[in-house]
Amino acid sequence: MKIRTMVMMALVAGGIALGVRVSIAHPKPATADILRQLESDFMEAAAERGAEGYMSYYAEDAVEVPNGADAIHGKTNIASTMSFLNDKNNQLVWTPVYADISASGDLGYTSGTYEFRSKHQDGKTTVEHGKYTSIWKKQKDGSWKVVLDMGNASPRK
Amino acid sequence: MKIRTMVMMALVAGGIALGVRVSIAHPKPATADILRQLESDFMEAAAERGAEGYMSYYAEDAVEVPNGADAIHGKTNIASTMSFLNDKNNQLVWTPVYADISASGDLGYTSGTYEFRSKHQDGKTTVEHGKYTSIWKKQKDGSWKVVLDMGNASPRK
Repeated sequence: MKIRTMVMMALVAGGIALGVRVSIAHPKPATADILRQLESDFMEAAAERGAEGYMSYYAEDAVEVPNGADAIHGKTNIASTMSFLNDKNNQLVWTPVYADISASGDLGYTSGTYEFRSKHQDGKTTVEHGKYTSIWKKQKDGSWKVVLDMGNASPRK
Repeated sequence: MKIRTMVMMALVAGGIALGVRVSIAHPKPATADILRQLESDFMEAAAERGAEGYMSYYAEDAVEVPNGADAIHGKTNIASTMSFLNDKNNQLVWTPVYADISASGDLGYTSGTYEFRSKHQDGKTTVEHGKYTSIWKKQKDGSWKVVLDMGNASPRK
C-alpha cells in the first residue's frame, strides 16, 4: 500500500509539474455520427445477407413496433417476420434524418424515411414510403444494437 | 501552484489511507423512473390544460412523426395540429410500456400504447388505438422535453 501511495503521489506531482491536468481520462464525447455509420452498415448487411444481415443489428431483447399490428418482443419473434428480405425482388432502403446520442455514448436514436421497393412477377415495381425511428443501445460487448424500432406510413405520393 | 500540489498530494494520500477511492464523485445513476413520472405529469397537463398543457412537454426543436403524414418540425408547427385536445369531448390517454435512459441521464425514451377517445354529438364514443415512441432529452435548464414523438396504429379490436 505504501508503495502504491508513493507511486500515486509521484504521478500526481509529476503530472502537475509537467502541466498535465490530473484527472481521469475523458474519452472524446460520443457523437451521433456513430449511429449514422451504423445505419449505413446495417442497410448494407440487409442488402447483402437479407433477414440474417438485418437482424444482426437487433438486440436479443429488442422490440419491433409495426404499423397496424401489436408490438413484437424479442429478436427471434421479430426475425420470423423479416424473411421477405431474403427475396431479391424486395429492397428496403432507409435514410436517417434525425440522430442523437447521449453524453455517455450508450443510448441514441435515429429517425428518418424508408422506401420498400418490390418487383412483381409482371415486371412492375411498387414502392411503399414510410418513416421509422430506431433506438440504439450499446451492449455489454461494446457493440451497438437496435433495442426498439418503429415504423409508420408516409402520405401517398 | 506549489500549495495546490501539496494539497492535492495530501488529499490523494489521505484518501488512500482512509481506504476511500480517489475519484470524481459519481451521482446516483439515472433510472427510467424519471421518464415514467414525466409521462404521468405530461398526460395530466394535457387533460387539464389541453393543447397548451400537452405542448409544454415539447422542446422548441421537437419533431412529430405522425402516421400517414410527413414529419412536422418545431413546436409551433406541431402545436397547430394539437387544438383537438382543447375539445373536452376528446381524450388522449397513453401507457408507457418500455422506457430507458442513458447512463449520463440526458437522453431517454418511452414507448407504449395510446387510446384516443372521442365523444360524438349522437352521444356515441369512438376509441382509436395506437402505439407511440417518445424521445426525451434533458434541456439546458434541467427540464426534460420530448424532442421526437412518433405514432402508429394498433390492430382494430
